[in-house]
Amino acid sequence: MKINRYLPIFLIVTCAFVVSAQQPSTPKLNLMPVPASITFHNERLAVDSNFRVATRGHSDARLQAAIWRFMKRLEGRTVLTLDSALAPDDQMTPLIVQTAGPGKNIPGLGEDESYRIDITRRQAILSAPTVIGAIRGLETVLQLLDADRNGYFLPGVQIDDRPRFPWRGLMIDVARHFQTMEVLKRNLDGMAAMKMNVFHWHLSEDQGFRVESKKFPKLHQLGSDGNYFTQEQVKEIIAYASDRGIRVVPEFDIPGHSTSWLVGYPELGSAPGPYTIERRPGIFEPALDPTREEVYKFLDTFLGEMAALFPDDYLHIGGDENEGKQWDRNPAIQAYMKKNGIKDNHALQAYFNTRLLKILQKHKKKMIGWDEILQPGLPNDVVIHSWRGTAALAEAARKGYDGILSNGYYIDLIQPASQHYVPDPLPADSTLTPEEAKHVLGGEATMWAEWVTPETIDSRIWPRTAAIAERLWSPRTVTDVPDMYRRLAVISLQLEELGLTHKRNQEMMLRRLVRNDDIGPLRTLVSVIEPVKEYRRYQQRPQTMLSPLTGVIDAALPDSETGRKFQWMVSEFLNDGPRFQLYHAELKQMLGDWQTAGASLNPVIDRSPALKEIKPLAQNLSQLGATGMEALTYLKLGMPPPREWREQSLAKVDEATKPYGALEFVVVAGVKQLVNAAAEVKQ
Amino acid sequence: MKINRYLPIFLIVTCAFVVSAQQPSTPKLNLMPVPASITFHNERLAVDSNFRVATRGHSDARLQAAIWRFMKRLEGRTVLTLDSALAPDDQMTPLIVQTAGPGKNIPGLGEDESYRIDITRRQAILSAPTVIGAIRGLETVLQLLDADRNGYFLPGVQIDDRPRFPWRGLMIDVARHFQTMEVLKRNLDGMAAMKMNVFHWHLSEDQGFRVESKKFPKLHQLGSDGNYFTQEQVKEIIAYASDRGIRVVPEFDIPGHSTSWLVGYPELGSAPGPYTIERRPGIFEPALDPTREEVYKFLDTFLGEMAALFPDDYLHIGGDENEGKQWDRNPAIQAYMKKNGIKDNHALQAYFNTRLLKILQKHKKKMIGWDEILQPGLPNDVVIHSWRGTAALAEAARKGYDGILSNGYYIDLIQPASQHYVPDPLPADSTLTPEEAKHVLGGEATMWAEWVTPETIDSRIWPRTAAIAERLWSPRTVTDVPDMYRRLAVISLQLEELGLTHKRNQEMMLRRLVRNDDIGPLRTLVSVIEPVKEYRRYQQRPQTMLSPLTGVIDAALPDSETGRKFQWMVSEFLNDGPRFQLYHAELKQMLGDWQTAGASLNPVIDRSPALKEIKPLAQNLSQLGATGMEALTYLKLGMPPPREWREQSLAKVDEATKPYGALEFVVVAGVKQLVNAAAEVKQ
Repeated sequence: MKINRYLPIFLIVTCAFVVSAQQPSTPKLNLMPVPASITFHNERLAVDSNFRVATRGHSDARLQAAIWRFMKRLEGRTVLTLDSALAPDDQMTPLIVQTAGPGKNIPGLGEDESYRIDITRRQAILSAPTVIGAIRGLETVLQLLDADRNGYFLPGVQIDDRPRFPWRGLMIDVARHFQTMEVLKRNLDGMAAMKMNVFHWHLSEDQGFRVESKKFPKLHQLGSDGNYFTQEQVKEIIAYASDRGIRVVPEFDIPGHSTSWLVGYPELGSAPGPYTIERRPGIFEPALDPTREEVYKFLDTFLGEMAALFPDDYLHIGGDENEGKQWDRNPAIQAYMKKNGIKDNHALQAYFNTRLLKILQKHKKKMIGWDEILQPGLPNDVVIHSWRGTAALAEAARKGYDGILSNGYYIDLIQPASQHYVPDPLPADSTLTPEEAKHVLGGEATMWAEWVTPETIDSRIWPRTAAIAERLWSPRTVTDVPDMYRRLAVISLQLEELGLTHKRNQEMMLRRLVRNDDIGPLRTLVSVIEPVKEYRRYQQRPQTMLSPLTGVIDAALPDSETGRKFQWMVSEFLNDGPRFQLYHAELKQMLGDWQTAGASLNPVIDRSPALKEIKPLAQNLSQLGATGMEALTYLKLGMPPPREWREQSLAKVDEATKPYGALEFVVVAGVKQLVNAAAEVKQ
Repeated sequence: MKINRYLPIFLIVTCAFVVSAQQPSTPKLNLMPVPASITFHNERLAVDSNFRVATRGHSDARLQAAIWRFMKRLEGRTVLTLDSALAPDDQMTPLIVQTAGPGKNIPGLGEDESYRIDITRRQAILSAPTVIGAIRGLETVLQLLDADRNGYFLPGVQIDDRPRFPWRGLMIDVARHFQTMEVLKRNLDGMAAMKMNVFHWHLSEDQGFRVESKKFPKLHQLGSDGNYFTQEQVKEIIAYASDRGIRVVPEFDIPGHSTSWLVGYPELGSAPGPYTIERRPGIFEPALDPTREEVYKFLDTFLGEMAALFPDDYLHIGGDENEGKQWDRNPAIQAYMKKNGIKDNHALQAYFNTRLLKILQKHKKKMIGWDEILQPGLPNDVVIHSWRGTAALAEAARKGYDGILSNGYYIDLIQPASQHYVPDPLPADSTLTPEEAKHVLGGEATMWAEWVTPETIDSRIWPRTAAIAERLWSPRTVTDVPDMYRRLAVISLQLEELGLTHKRNQEMMLRRLVRNDDIGPLRTLVSVIEPVKEYRRYQQRPQTMLSPLTGVIDAALPDSETGRKFQWMVSEFLNDGPRFQLYHAELKQMLGDWQTAGASLNPVIDRSPALKEIKPLAQNLSQLGATGMEALTYLKLGMPPPREWREQSLAKVDEATKPYGALEFVVVAGVKQLVNAAAEVKQ
């Protein structure tokens, strides 16, 4: 927005006051997630080329590596050459990192991640009971960095911080579309920046088996098109995550979602096969046969191998969306059920899970699975991963099951951050007792990978996942959506410093589509459209797992910033706010751009057949611009439009609600508001 | 340039004619490097969702992988879902890849890389004697892809192509700044797209030792800060390169440039040590001691290990820039020289090289080294790598030495592509006999890495290296600079499809500097400045190898497109060409933008201390804009300026020639031309 172009985003607070979790919106720091408590002093600590760090108390390789990375990122932002070696612990050292001990450092739940930051004009002290707490605090210090014409500085604050939930995860499905080591590492960096602590690695699916098995090599050899992680690479990722205080929980989804297993080992299936890797999205029939001992023998060996490879206490067994159609058709399975009094497929899957649980217990792993695994008779020491919602989670908690929430956090569905910001694993109106509430461990954002490649995945994860990270870390009362978006815009830039590509890849993709550098008109269109939400993409624009994800829909981003800006300006303009004149000028500029861009796109589309699918959108962009401009003119002049104008204009606006290329406008409501307001103008 | 915004870059040639190497500028194909010969037919082969490939004759895993990658890139550009599995070889299959055999497939020189492409309205046939020839031809087919409103198509052409030189390399220094696997892989893809065939891997330097040695682990453990390639990773890179028809020639630079070796093994040095990894740029004293048998024993073991790891016939031993100062000061070395009649340090290094040559011969490697290794008595079977120039190369060739050229191809020096385009390993005026000329094998672009990180290195390599690739592949007569730049602009976009980041990272870097999304004014400034050339960066803005490379100088690109465009418009405008009016409008717009951007930058700089160093540039940008605008006005109105105007204006323009932050304007000459022309206006 032009009016804010040169206003400092970060406003310096000039008097000291305390912000508790109950009044989180006052200070304009760009902290995300918002810490549990902040106190401001009216002073600052300069960050110049003398900036150094010392450790106090415990120190170890992981802490030192974290400090090194911290210094390199600080250098990157300030373009200052700093001495990144540890300084002596004295009163002259700008930042002291004081750590009580290494922490439990266990590969499971329950590490103390709290920290305190105290910044005065002389020194900053970050203190934490554990190395992970210190690592969390270093991220906050980086977010505190600010600058003005006198140089870079850290504002005088005292921060006391700790997470609300102990399980704050991101699931990445590397099975439907394979993702590279590079993708995982930069996303682990992004997670650490947002203080997330669980990387849930969805490693197998109908569409691919993505980890090397030395015991059953046909799993990865025949189930992956050659795209899998070697065990060495798995270890590298686990070490990389551990360095950042992130646990790695692997998922092997069974008994359904298992086509890729059966390509190499059809004898495990409930139908004879042969099987080929699934290329479509959806729910498929292949399922392991829960009635055969060989299957459990296989799983014992395989999960034993994986249990040794992945040190975390938890192992996710999926368990979702098995409809049991293969079971229904298999006479041997039916006979087994009859013989053993297993009354239906739910009961059969419960039997399978009970056997699986024993195998996991033997290999010292706690079992976690999706909602469906919660069947009568399931022992209490499993974790329910809820895609169904908080009610299911609360019900499980009442029964004594630990649980985590993913309902509402499905970032693949292209919903805005504001929508993901609302669901709370433990909402204000929860009726759980404090004891029951302890079973609610947190939640996970889920990046299902039907429609993402290494080129686009970051833009589907970030920055929206930061809003979910905040929900899981910050006090429950931190719910101010405009303030969240204000901070998210800043955080989004910082995330790209870590190698993430959610912003920078878009123009590259537009250049490829346009086939030259002149992407202006297409960029204008793309800034006001979004991919269709939920599961409508495939319905409207079917593709396979082998299709190119290089279309306009792939370049378009979720949660359009321009869309939000437009809507806000329309409201302010119509409400006759103090900046009415300014917003009028801005809106006029924007609507004019749409008119021009829509027209300019025609020759662009003519030379790029891949753009043909958006031709109606270009037409509608012009229409929206022209209609909005007319409304703006009537409103500005205080001149009533002709009688039939409202109806005709609304018809044009309605036309623009139709999606094309599985893309839809996000500015229709605002234009409609302008039209309706203009139609009310009286002589 | 706005005037060309919607003109198709690729003009369809509607009549059949032949273009030999003697008249290469006529057809507007975007082929790079330009092939040896092209014939056009007036027809086209449609590329739609039925596009498939069949092989004919020889087929193997490498060819099939290349076809798979070809299909995926074709899909990426067209957003068509194609069947990438091999089709049957029949008349209905759109592309036949006909390969005579696997080729010698040796890890050395001399593979036949020729191919022929024949495209009619029915079918395209790519035929080649070897798999590598077919791989080269597939890149040409991708470059031929064009489109109009009827869809994607391949133009009807017959192309006969083969390289002019057999050694067309890119050297990447991974020692001064470490580069990741990802960086190397995407650059290998870029090389393959430009038909380059040698990746020269500069693996050791004073500032770092970058490969795992199992024989002497302290080399990488103490000499690399933990940043080195494991032997598994080396194998992965070699396989990746080989898949793309690229040889991998490792370099271990000795006896100088070896500080990092001596950190772990000080006993190899010519002074007692201890040594630490060098952090500065420059030439340093540490050198191996050529008078001690233990040194040769060490080298025998180490080079034996590396010879087994790197399958290529050649191994580069550096040999450059050893000034022998440690040798001068070491009494034992001086005594040895006296005793053995070694008269000076040149002779001592020649002795060292002779010993080294024997070791390499024992391990079945051919020795290659920089100019300095060419000393009297050196056997003929070594290759001279010339940083000195074509004269040195010709001299070596006369003496019977093979040689490659890098003088003129130092892409780290930030010179424009037009400058790198000129040097020819075998220039037109060469006086070498045909027999002698065969010793000139080709050349290499050299990416010395004092000032590049994984974030910026691509922008220092691409797209300029494509011009060097063309020099080494295309007929000698292909020298049309404007046509080269026309094609380079298109090729540059295509290179980013391979994951290269030379364009996309710039705005990310500007956002980090500005600390928000409003990078407009800074982008305008950066578009008309370049980093200072040759070795002036360090002189004007000294940094160490540990400094952040995130400043404006790092975001600024070599070979400014805007600068070339401005200069060209000024010429056309002043020459009163047919588009005089249009260029006037364009120039007015551009000069106006400079005025505004220069002023707008002040508040941006105030909140971003990292930008302070460019404050005078912002001021000068406004001045250049204002002065140019005045000149434009006088010229347009045909009104003579006041008498003192020329002098005052030229003084302002001269002020803008001063570099700040090691950055300089590239539009000064054009503004000066405008001023001088305006000053000549008569009443």
